[in-house]
Amino acid sequence: MTLQDAIGSIQPVDQDCLSRTQRRLDRLTKPVGSLGRLEELAARYVAITGEERPPIPRAAIFTFAADHGVVAEGVSAYPSAVTAQMVLNFLRGGAGVNVLASHVGAEVRVVDIGVAHEFGPLPDLIHRKVARGTKNFLREPAMTREQAIRALEVGVTLAREAVNDGIGLIGTGDMGIGNTTASAAITAVMTGESVAAVTGRGTGIDKAGLARKAAVIEQALSNRQPDAADPLDVLAKVGGFEIAGLAGLILGGAACRRPVVLDGFISGAAALIAAGLSPLCREYLIASHLSVERGHQAVCTKLGLRPLLDLGLRLGEGTGACLAISLVHAAIKVLTGMATFDEAGVSERLS
Amino acid sequence: MTLQDAIGSIQPVDQDCLSRTQRRLDRLTKPVGSLGRLEELAARYVAITGEERPPIPRAAIFTFAADHGVVAEGVSAYPSAVTAQMVLNFLRGGAGVNVLASHVGAEVRVVDIGVAHEFGPLPDLIHRKVARGTKNFLREPAMTREQAIRALEVGVTLAREAVNDGIGLIGTGDMGIGNTTASAAITAVMTGESVAAVTGRGTGIDKAGLARKAAVIEQALSNRQPDAADPLDVLAKVGGFEIAGLAGLILGGAACRRPVVLDGFISGAAALIAAGLSPLCREYLIASHLSVERGHQAVCTKLGLRPLLDLGLRLGEGTGACLAISLVHAAIKVLTGMATFDEAGVSERLS
Repeated sequence: MTLQDAIGSIQPVDQDCLSRTQRRLDRLTKPVGSLGRLEELAARYVAITGEERPPIPRAAIFTFAADHGVVAEGVSAYPSAVTAQMVLNFLRGGAGVNVLASHVGAEVRVVDIGVAHEFGPLPDLIHRKVARGTKNFLREPAMTREQAIRALEVGVTLAREAVNDGIGLIGTGDMGIGNTTASAAITAVMTGESVAAVTGRGTGIDKAGLARKAAVIEQALSNRQPDAADPLDVLAKVGGFEIAGLAGLILGGAACRRPVVLDGFISGAAALIAAGLSPLCREYLIASHLSVERGHQAVCTKLGLRPLLDLGLRLGEGTGACLAISLVHAAIKVLTGMATFDEAGVSERLS
Repeated sequence: MTLQDAIGSIQPVDQDCLSRTQRRLDRLTKPVGSLGRLEELAARYVAITGEERPPIPRAAIFTFAADHGVVAEGVSAYPSAVTAQMVLNFLRGGAGVNVLASHVGAEVRVVDIGVAHEFGPLPDLIHRKVARGTKNFLREPAMTREQAIRALEVGVTLAREAVNDGIGLIGTGDMGIGNTTASAAITAVMTGESVAAVTGRGTGIDKAGLARKAAVIEQALSNRQPDAADPLDVLAKVGGFEIAGLAGLILGGAACRRPVVLDGFISGAAALIAAGLSPLCREYLIASHLSVERGHQAVCTKLGLRPLLDLGLRLGEGTGACLAISLVHAAIKVLTGMATFDEAGVSERLS
């Protein structure tokens, strides 16, 4: 599926379905609205999928991994080698996302979309490398526009294949040393916030490092002049391959009428790109959590999303998305598993 | 186990254990602290139980049901008959707590501690009725001091039996038409907040009803003069049997070195009584969520607890506790299932 096909096939979610579902929720044995955001999630799930009595969807977290040339500027607390090392950790099941995905019954699909390392024929890795990391976007564009489109289409295609394969709920995840720098650059451009307001400590850089990181982004935006009205331009000039893949995954999920559960800041930056390409895709997004990473609140505000959780997370990988997948499953079970007042013989409220 | 035995056997949690666990968490393949409150939960779980590599504990939600004489004053949107009807709904598995407990792999144990209805020999109901509902505390004390102690000891004993039976994680739940009125009265007395500041809409009473409810509580506190320095006096004069049972459950859980996951406002009022009887028991509490019910924030502040979730819930029954039990399980899996940097061969941070 091409990028244009995906964008062209995204439809608004079904508002009638949403209203009918809320009326059903109001008949269940509880005070109206008393399950709060679980009710909101159930209604949105039905409006997205069109399934009025949905089964519990199989869920998959897509963890896209890529490297970032801008790490050469000293913007991260960890060396680039960690990206590839963590990919191997994902494949062995030892990372946070493995543990939390298993906890909620989700699969983890690990995608090499731009790691600066040749893994060889690892059977469990999804090999979709577009390049061995981005260029250093302080000095030159991170990638070509053509590479950005290829990386987006990797995500679109993986979403469609997953849905064809029976996945009903798609979670986003990322691994890429340096990717909070690219995400902050994208966020500054796409939200209009200052670089200082959206640049955070990432994996845990110190105060001097944070100042350097913000200065690198400021200078890069001045050098590259990305055009906020052209999301592909922003992505190519200051983005990352994993961010592009995630933006494609979001568009592909929306095109297939499947909810996409966003992880934290990196996934949010990808969603800004996706929503720039197709504003309608926002209706398919579920914001799992509010990251500690500075800048994530600005992303959520711009997208019109209210995160479900606020647990002080800042790991990425898809860890926050896992926890929210459990809430989506819970919401569906409320909708389909609770008795109505009539069924249970429970008295209605006093008039 | 008597109430005094339980109170006397509660010990401070193990701070050395907590520190050792945090050091272990810092060696896992993630930036230090990046799993936020999941790390806090894991460390607290270990400090409470003394289990350094804990297995996933079996969890049980105790849903205590009771009626309230004060409902005669028109303080609720639903008739008292709903308490017994919902008990039957719990036993048939059709209520919110059944669905969410099943979702997280927890049992639901339903306790009749004071419902104004004779259920007969229902095998799945835990029969511990102290009386057929409280008296109308606007007119007379809700219960005698002796009844309050009996109801507390029901909770203490159920907690101890559950732990002996292999339950490692205890969740609190409640059902009782009128119980936000009793809980608001307890909260006003135990926190020193004004009645208006802690009285909310409960199951959904209208504006006039809310004013009536607050006026009833004001007048009752004036009539009864509960003594904040004597939690048993407060409980007996303006409490409820389910609140007493929950306070006992909390004390019993803490006495057995088991974490108690608090549901919302009613459970919070019970925790105020329990903490009044034994301040140490607060170290064993996990606040699952911030309820929409006005007054719950004041409860959490007084107890020094920060709720994990804020999902607009106001159902009670133990529904919020269920969702937090899943987070406790997730936290334990992070602690015991993730690889360390050494094990995974992942590079450490740059110095």
